Amino acid sequence: MSRALSVLRTVAEVRAWRSGRRTCGFVPTMGALHAGHIDLVRRATAENENVIVSIFVNPAQFAPSEDLSTYPSTLTDDMDHLRKLPVDALFLPDVDVLYPSGIVQDVERQVGTFVDVQGYSNQMEGRSRPTFFRGVATVVLKLFNIVQPTRAYFGQKDIQQAILLRQMLRDLHLAWPTPANLIISPTTRHESTGLALSSRNAYLSANELEVSPILNEVLRLTAHAIETGQSVEEALAEGLSVFARTSEAARARHVTLRPDYLILNDPQTLQPLSRYDPARGAVLSGACWLGKTRLIDNILLGQHGLL
Amino acid sequence: MSRALSVLRTVAEVRAWRSGRRTCGFVPTMGALHAGHIDLVRRATAENENVIVSIFVNPAQFAPSEDLSTYPSTLTDDMDHLRKLPVDALFLPDVDVLYPSGIVQDVERQVGTFVDVQGYSNQMEGRSRPTFFRGVATVVLKLFNIVQPTRAYFGQKDIQQAILLRQMLRDLHLAWPTPANLIISPTTRHESTGLALSSRNAYLSANELEVSPILNEVLRLTAHAIETGQSVEEALAEGLSVFARTSEAARARHVTLRPDYLILNDPQTLQPLSRYDPARGAVLSGACWLGKTRLIDNILLGQHGLL
Repeated sequence: MSRALSVLRTVAEVRAWRSGRRTCGFVPTMGALHAGHIDLVRRATAENENVIVSIFVNPAQFAPSEDLSTYPSTLTDDMDHLRKLPVDALFLPDVDVLYPSGIVQDVERQVGTFVDVQGYSNQMEGRSRPTFFRGVATVVLKLFNIVQPTRAYFGQKDIQQAILLRQMLRDLHLAWPTPANLIISPTTRHESTGLALSSRNAYLSANELEVSPILNEVLRLTAHAIETGQSVEEALAEGLSVFARTSEAARARHVTLRPDYLILNDPQTLQPLSRYDPARGAVLSGACWLGKTRLIDNILLGQHGLL
Repeated sequence: MSRALSVLRTVAEVRAWRSGRRTCGFVPTMGALHAGHIDLVRRATAENENVIVSIFVNPAQFAPSEDLSTYPSTLTDDMDHLRKLPVDALFLPDVDVLYPSGIVQDVERQVGTFVDVQGYSNQMEGRSRPTFFRGVATVVLKLFNIVQPTRAYFGQKDIQQAILLRQMLRDLHLAWPTPANLIISPTTRHESTGLALSSRNAYLSANELEVSPILNEVLRLTAHAIETGQSVEEALAEGLSVFARTSEAARARHVTLRPDYLILNDPQTLQPLSRYDPARGAVLSGACWLGKTRLIDNILLGQHGLL
């Protein structure tokens, strides 16, 4: 089953495509599509008459030190996937379409309109990547304004991004999509190891891949400890000690494993939690470096109401 | 001629009102309506089938030291004016409608989504009021998302605000309104003195009112000097020296006049200009304090393409 995929490059082309359609589902991506993206798109096609996917590697969410220039790109394969699903339209804008005032990675020198979601941007991923979510919020707001989707789909793997964007929709009173129509879909994982799928997994060596399941394992055992009544502080400390022991073992295989953080946060406000209330729920998330590759993952606890 | 004025207080009420109407013109205000607002609304009623006005005194655009708690409020009179024009709807939201995450005036402690238009916010008015335009951009984006106006009307008196908001629409690719449909309407002035109308003029004493035309006079003579070939630097210096002489004379009448700035800026980028190019145009703007009241005004030079 394959049908024509409209490739749209300008705002005017997207508006013309959209104006003929009552509703549409939207999956924004940075390309390098993997099974996690495909799951999102499949859900979008099941829940919407029309589906549009965007591929745009957003300079504003990369720090000058990060991997913008080497971010994986597999456009031909991506388009084949989208045709087969099938998806109706692909929005493939140039940088100057999304940043009419231009964009440099140095935040101080940037000119134009930027969006901050204060209180949601500086913890968890934002602690390691202080301007990341400013870049994400800004580009997603632009994409939403252009596409005007009925529903938009984001993966649970980037849970802070999804919660922050939903808050942005609430605060800015966006109509397309509404906060309730920002859909968070469960993380797609490697079947046998549980590794969360990510475009950046392509950077991992064979030895690193073998060590990579540790992040999800630490999250699962820490979540279990918290859910069965261990104090949050103790459970996080034990999780980090498992990381430390694994780092030593990994060194023998010439793999450098460095835990970045392991933290429990409120599912609505993203504030760090030192106590767990199952009725309120929580987000347990972690990040680690495997060599030069940064991995993130999370588990949702209790009545979080997010998915 | 008077017709029913719908007073809308929630987002849902505005959406319901709007959904039945193909197009609408929108005039956002902070109330305390004067002839300048009335001119904007009159233009909106002439150019649109339906017109909605909002009255909302936006806490996020006042610094903790500024006049939020004493900002003039004349709601009963405002509504009488709107009924007579006539206007179809008045959006009169409570603070928690526009700031669902709450709002405090201390920027560091604010939680939620805020919009910065970098490169447009720190010069002119932004130099004296460093977080003012962040508050303006944020609230206007919310209002636009709620009202989804075909056209929105702003006064030339707040020229930096209008240029910055138009840039925000370009950068964020807003559809309602488009940048071209952000209408900037010429400043309404006191007939005999030329004083630009402003809600804050209500603060002026009789003696201060007599001195107040000086701001527009300085702008006019400086504009004339620049347009007839004097160097920008010299023309601005002469303008400031007129201010200084007037301050001395005012002191004899127990009026304190303090010039704040007098500056020439590019009409598109708002960057300060040291040379004037009539083909590109320019914005000449000034601000001064009369006692505790701050006055602003501006004149557009050359082919600015703004109005």
